[in-house]
Amino acid sequence: MQKIIAVFFLLLAPHILKAQEPAKVLSSVFDEALTDRTEYNNLEYLCKHTKGRIAGSPAAEKAIEYTRQALISAGADTVWLQKVRVPHWVRGTEKCTVTSSVHGTKDLAITALGLSVGTNENELTSNVIEVHNFEELKTLGIQSIQGKIVFFNRPFDNKLINSFSAYGGAVNQRTTGPSEASEYGAIAVIVRSMTQSLDNFPHTGVTRYADSVNKIPAVAVSTLDAELLSQWLKTDPSLTLHLVSSCRNYPDTLSYNVIGEVYGSLKPHEYITVGGHLDAWDIAEGAIDDGGGCVQAIEMIRIYKKLGIKPKRTMRAVMFMNEEMTGTGGKTYAEEAKRKGEVHYAALESDRGVMSPRGFGFEADGPKLEKLQTLASWFAPYNIRDFDKGGGGSDIAPLKALGALQIGYIPDSQRYFWYHHSANDTFEQVNIRELQMGSAAIASLIYLIDLFDL
Amino acid sequence: MQKIIAVFFLLLAPHILKAQEPAKVLSSVFDEALTDRTEYNNLEYLCKHTKGRIAGSPAAEKAIEYTRQALISAGADTVWLQKVRVPHWVRGTEKCTVTSSVHGTKDLAITALGLSVGTNENELTSNVIEVHNFEELKTLGIQSIQGKIVFFNRPFDNKLINSFSAYGGAVNQRTTGPSEASEYGAIAVIVRSMTQSLDNFPHTGVTRYADSVNKIPAVAVSTLDAELLSQWLKTDPSLTLHLVSSCRNYPDTLSYNVIGEVYGSLKPHEYITVGGHLDAWDIAEGAIDDGGGCVQAIEMIRIYKKLGIKPKRTMRAVMFMNEEMTGTGGKTYAEEAKRKGEVHYAALESDRGVMSPRGFGFEADGPKLEKLQTLASWFAPYNIRDFDKGGGGSDIAPLKALGALQIGYIPDSQRYFWYHHSANDTFEQVNIRELQMGSAAIASLIYLIDLFDL
Repeated sequence: MQKIIAVFFLLLAPHILKAQEPAKVLSSVFDEALTDRTEYNNLEYLCKHTKGRIAGSPAAEKAIEYTRQALISAGADTVWLQKVRVPHWVRGTEKCTVTSSVHGTKDLAITALGLSVGTNENELTSNVIEVHNFEELKTLGIQSIQGKIVFFNRPFDNKLINSFSAYGGAVNQRTTGPSEASEYGAIAVIVRSMTQSLDNFPHTGVTRYADSVNKIPAVAVSTLDAELLSQWLKTDPSLTLHLVSSCRNYPDTLSYNVIGEVYGSLKPHEYITVGGHLDAWDIAEGAIDDGGGCVQAIEMIRIYKKLGIKPKRTMRAVMFMNEEMTGTGGKTYAEEAKRKGEVHYAALESDRGVMSPRGFGFEADGPKLEKLQTLASWFAPYNIRDFDKGGGGSDIAPLKALGALQIGYIPDSQRYFWYHHSANDTFEQVNIRELQMGSAAIASLIYLIDLFDL
Repeated sequence: MQKIIAVFFLLLAPHILKAQEPAKVLSSVFDEALTDRTEYNNLEYLCKHTKGRIAGSPAAEKAIEYTRQALISAGADTVWLQKVRVPHWVRGTEKCTVTSSVHGTKDLAITALGLSVGTNENELTSNVIEVHNFEELKTLGIQSIQGKIVFFNRPFDNKLINSFSAYGGAVNQRTTGPSEASEYGAIAVIVRSMTQSLDNFPHTGVTRYADSVNKIPAVAVSTLDAELLSQWLKTDPSLTLHLVSSCRNYPDTLSYNVIGEVYGSLKPHEYITVGGHLDAWDIAEGAIDDGGGCVQAIEMIRIYKKLGIKPKRTMRAVMFMNEEMTGTGGKTYAEEAKRKGEVHYAALESDRGVMSPRGFGFEADGPKLEKLQTLASWFAPYNIRDFDKGGGGSDIAPLKALGALQIGYIPDSQRYFWYHHSANDTFEQVNIRELQMGSAAIASLIYLIDLFDL
C-alpha cells in the first residue's frame, strides 16, 4: 500500500509542485517570452517571405511548411498537417476611376473584396448612388438603383469604445452589401473600407453572395477616397465611375491546418487548442491578422518545452487555414475531432491582433465564469486585468459543440483596424514586447486552466 | 428665507445635476473626444512645424505661440505665458567612427547627450573600454580608464514588465555616467541608447555633470551599433574610436510656460493643473514625448467648454517648458504659485506617452488612496482599470509642497521607449484613438475629482 501511495505521489509530484507555485511558473513564462526573439523572428519570416498567403496560394503553402518546421524547432512532441478544402480566389488587375464634369478625374484607391466576382476584363461604367444602410436601398428601390453602382459609405461609429463593436456595426456593408444591392439591380458595389482610420489604404475582406442573387463585382475603397467620392457626389450626382476588377474564383483546392502537440502527462486524450489563422489577405503581410496569433501559439509550445512544463492535457498549437474566406480550417478541425471522438477541454483563439494584452474573454456564465475570473489575481503582476464574459473566435467556434470552453485572447483594440485586411498590416506595425507579453499571457492562462481543471 | 434657499439651490443646481449623473457626463466627454480631430491636428502641427523644440530654440518659441493660440481656440477663459529661465544648448555636427585592424571601419549612429560638452571642433581619438555599471569603473580604476573613451553598455532588463522600470534601471549610465567616468580620467563617454528596441536610432537625453568633475563629451549610440561595438571589442580590444561632437552650451535664456484656464464656478481660487511639457529633444518631433501630453491638456479645456462643464475649481492646462534639461518650467510654476499664495488642489501630468489608457497613478496612501480607487467604477465602460499608487511626474512634483495631489496619467508602456528621445518620435507613431481615449480619461478623472472633492 505504501508503495502504491509512493508511486501515486511520484506520478503527481511535478503537478503538486507546480500547484504550490504557479506564481513562479508564470514568472518563468514571462521571463522566457520577454527575453527570446524566436517568436518575433518567426513572425518576420511569415510577413516577409509568405506575404499575401491567402488560402490556396503558393505563399500559403510556404507558410504551412515554415510553421511546420517552426513547431518542430519549438520542440513539439508531434507535428502534423490536416487536409482542408479551401476556395481558390485570385485577384487580378483592378482600377477605379471617377470622372466628373464638375470636379475632374481621379483614380480611387480600391481593392476587390475576397470571393467577389470580377468585371470579366470589361470596364463597368455607370453612375453611383451613395447609401449608408440596407433600409436606404429599400427606400430607393429598383427604379433608382437598377443599372447603377452602389456606394456603401457608412463609417465606423467612433463613439464605440471597443473597435470590434464599431467593426461589427459597419461590416455588413461588405459581407452582404453586394448581395443586397444586387437584389435591386445594382451592377457593382463599392464599399467604404472597414476602418476608423482616414487614410489611403483600401481594406479588403470577404463578401458572401446569397445563392439567389446575380453576383456583381464588389470592391472596397480607402476611407479618404470614400470621403472624396461622397463630396463629389453632393455637387455632381451624375458623376461616373469606371471599374475594372479581373479577380476570379477557381475550383476549390487542397490546403492544410498545421498542428503541433505537447503530449499531456495525465490526460493525454484531452485536448486544449491554442490557435490563430495562417492565411492572410493577399494584399497584406498578415502580421496583425493573423501571423501574430500563429507565432503566439507556436511560442506556447516553445515555452512549455524550454521550461519543462508538463501539462496534464495535450496542448495543441493550431495554425488554422482559410479563416478569411470560408472558415473551412476551423470546421474541418472540429469535424475531425468529432470523428475521432476526441475530448476537447478548452480552446483559445488569438485573432484580435497582437497589441498589449488586456486579458481574456470567456464564453461562460455564472459560477463557471466566476471561477475563471479568479484567475485574474495571477495576472496582476503583469497588469493584465480583463477577465470578462465573451470572446472565442471563428476558428474555435465549431469546437463548442464538443464542449470546449471558448476563450478569446483580448489585446488592446484601439489601433487594430488601421491594419486589418490592408497593405498596412506589416511586420513593422508589431511591437516585439506587446507580442511577447501576449504570448506569455496565453501560455500562462492555458497552464493555469489545465492545472486547476477550470 | 425661501428666497435664500432658492438662490442657494440656483447656485448649486448645475453641480447637483451633474452629481446625479456623472456617468452621463463621462459618456459625453468620451463621445466628444472620440469624434473630434482638433487635438490630433494640434499634435500634427507641433510635430511637423515645431519639430525639435528644445528649450531656448526658435522651434520652442513657435510652439509657445501655437499652443497659446490653441488654448484660445479651445475656449479657455484666459491664456497667459509665464516666464521661465532655460538653458540654451545647441547640437553641432557629430560623428563617431570606429576603426579596427581586425574588423575594419564603421560609422556609428550617435547623438550627443543634452547639456553635454563637445569636442571643441577637435576629433577625439582613443581606445574604448566597455563597462556596464559604476562598480566596474571602480574595479578598473584610473590606471585602466585614464585617457580612454568609456562605453556604457548595460541594456534594459527585458524581464521587467513596466518599461519605465527598465528605463529606471539603465538611465543612470546616461544621466551620471559621464561624470562618473570623468572621475577616473575618461576623455569621453559613449552610452548605449535607452531603449529595449534593437534598431539604429540613437536616443539622446540629458546628462548632468557633477560640479567637481572635468566635463567630458558624451554621446548615445544606437542599440544595434552598441551591440556591434561590443562584438568588435571582444576580438579587438585595441580598436579606436574617433569622436566629433560640436555641441555647445550658451548662456541661459528666456522662455515660457503656456497656461490656459477655465475659471472655477464655486472655488475659483483653488487650482487643478493638467499638463505636459512643450519642449522636445532637438532630434525629435516630440509626438510621444510630449506633444501628446500638451494637446491632451488643451483638449480638456476644449471639451469642458464645448460641453458646458463648469468645474467648481479653476482648471489649468499647462504646457511646461524645459522638462527635458533642467525642469525650470515646473519649478517656476510652483514658485510662482507659492509666491501668489495659490491653493493647488491637485495636479496631473501626462508624460508617459499617449498609448491606450490603462489608468492613473496617485501619490496617496490609506483611506485617501482607497477613495481615489473607487473612481475606477466610473471608468469600467471605457476599459480603464488601473487606479494604483504611484504616479505624478517631474513637472508637477514641485507642487507637492503646496499640497497638490499628484496624479500621473498611465498609458500602456510597452512601446514607449521605441520612440523616446529619438528621431523615431514622430506624429505617425501616435494613433488618434489611443490619444483621444487618453484625453477623455484625463478630462473625466479631473471632472470627478473636482466634483466629489477627492
